[in-house]
Amino acid sequence: MKLATLKAGGRDGSLIVVSRDLRHCQKVPKIAATLQFALDNWGLVVERLETVYKSLNDDSSWDMQPFDETLCHSPLPRAYQWADGSAYINHVELVRKARNAEVPASFYTDPLMYQGGSDSFIGPHDPIFALSEEWGIDLEAEVAVVTGEVAMGASVHECAKAIRLVMLVNDVSLRNLIPNELAKGFGFFQSKAASAFSPVCVTPDELGDAWQDSKLRLPINVQLNGRPFGKPNAGDDMTFNFAQLVAHAAATRELAGGTIIGSGTVSNKQGSLHGSSIENGGVGYCCLAEVRMYETIEQGAPKTPYLKFGDTVRIEMFDQQGASIFGAIDQTVAHYEGRQR
Amino acid sequence: MKLATLKAGGRDGSLIVVSRDLRHCQKVPKIAATLQFALDNWGLVVERLETVYKSLNDDSSWDMQPFDETLCHSPLPRAYQWADGSAYINHVELVRKARNAEVPASFYTDPLMYQGGSDSFIGPHDPIFALSEEWGIDLEAEVAVVTGEVAMGASVHECAKAIRLVMLVNDVSLRNLIPNELAKGFGFFQSKAASAFSPVCVTPDELGDAWQDSKLRLPINVQLNGRPFGKPNAGDDMTFNFAQLVAHAAATRELAGGTIIGSGTVSNKQGSLHGSSIENGGVGYCCLAEVRMYETIEQGAPKTPYLKFGDTVRIEMFDQQGASIFGAIDQTVAHYEGRQR
Repeated sequence: MKLATLKAGGRDGSLIVVSRDLRHCQKVPKIAATLQFALDNWGLVVERLETVYKSLNDDSSWDMQPFDETLCHSPLPRAYQWADGSAYINHVELVRKARNAEVPASFYTDPLMYQGGSDSFIGPHDPIFALSEEWGIDLEAEVAVVTGEVAMGASVHECAKAIRLVMLVNDVSLRNLIPNELAKGFGFFQSKAASAFSPVCVTPDELGDAWQDSKLRLPINVQLNGRPFGKPNAGDDMTFNFAQLVAHAAATRELAGGTIIGSGTVSNKQGSLHGSSIENGGVGYCCLAEVRMYETIEQGAPKTPYLKFGDTVRIEMFDQQGASIFGAIDQTVAHYEGRQR
Repeated sequence: MKLATLKAGGRDGSLIVVSRDLRHCQKVPKIAATLQFALDNWGLVVERLETVYKSLNDDSSWDMQPFDETLCHSPLPRAYQWADGSAYINHVELVRKARNAEVPASFYTDPLMYQGGSDSFIGPHDPIFALSEEWGIDLEAEVAVVTGEVAMGASVHECAKAIRLVMLVNDVSLRNLIPNELAKGFGFFQSKAASAFSPVCVTPDELGDAWQDSKLRLPINVQLNGRPFGKPNAGDDMTFNFAQLVAHAAATRELAGGTIIGSGTVSNKQGSLHGSSIENGGVGYCCLAEVRMYETIEQGAPKTPYLKFGDTVRIEMFDQQGASIFGAIDQTVAHYEGRQR
């Protein structure tokens, strides 16, 4: 099943069911007005939502409308929790190698995860707003899951079953603010801007064979200013799967339904390399920081700049038949001029 | 005006207006069913809520009921954002002194703040659940504010005006999990358990002269197992006021209405000391970690244990006439036996 949220209808938008081919949709106010409501009442609404989904796919919906992903907000425009892992250790290894540091052994057994801001997500086609290019604006293309309720100390097996939805995310980072902020010891805060999620989120069964062992085994496609920038496979080199990441989050506290858990920047090791650009025949990157670290290792200093106002980022994933699964995150970096909402 | 949330009525509970003396309350479903709804529509509902508040205080309410704080959830049972500052530098100085480290100069000009989990707060009279005493369960008595919407880069003056409500919080920390987690560099996650907030939250005007310069100038009273443990003044030694803390949070992103910003553990310097117990004539402490650091400095090692199952914590604040302003956070530490909800 595929779900999305139209911006119309208040801060939490309006839940719609979207056809598999992303061509049609139907509002479902009598079943669930918002995605958070659906997640809060999943057992009561899921069958009715699936019935609507089936009718959209076989053209028998009584209230079918064209689906326009540019009218969508993030599936949860605001959420009660957004926690982002760093499951692709290749990314961490590259960061460390660029500064000649070892990766601690515990990083291969104990997931890295930070608590992100979840109060004000932006839409998948909204601008990435910043007050200054000097912040070092960077994309981070990732996969994320949305959970149902999870008990404190839940097992990895229980956490796998609690995964309700899968989607993509651009976890914008402000790289030049990170060193000073992490040095303070309390993690990211100002160095993480508002994240945007793909227009469409899907239930794991929708992914078929591509969803295995709580991993999404497909390439994530990233374009920068219209040119291919990355296509690493989100199922490769993922040291911790989503069930393990959810279990990490739930180790000492309950998780509410609608908790979003991210994978961290997708990053593939390629042979003996920690990555290689698409021009060089590699699978490329999901963030500029990796290119810059690679340049630092190879050439002594980073060459590629961070994002400037006007730059565009597009993140999308295609199924084995080449069809877009989640719609696209398609954003332009822009100067913030005050509240839009 | 005083507001609270009864547990009845779903995950977000039911908003009530509470009389100044905490003796009576009135449900207001036709004005705002939940506190989040009221915050989302503050300009439209605040006058009508204040009218109810006035009628409760002059005994003219048409639907007055007895107020029982034990039936309350935290004012926001789940929130879209909970960010906790560390505004009482005395606390930080004490931590550092216990390990012979300097406090960086920037800590006096740039607030420390971490992003907390806000999806599953517990009620003010709910147990503090944990799976193990070995986690090093500690209280942290703090003051917190709830904001309206705040623009990215808002000034301190604008942030002062965006403070809608004030309340108390017990930001439970799992001390024995902190060193390994902070060493990973991404801040707190598993080392922070679910927080509980005072039964009642109040508008700043309700605090009269005690609310000055975005600080709450009254002692916060902490009891441990029924004995006085701390009574430091929340207005003293606060290096950053709440307006500054909100501005820090909003520096690179918008804040949604209903964002909760905490002060960090209240901590008073006393003369040349970094604190002193109530038995020794001091104002005591708001967390066990400070006692243990003080013991480490004085005696070479901590003596006071962290909380054990069955221990009780009570946090309350009284006005100049001795009346409880927010009701009490009154919790017992207990072993987690699975989801209650």
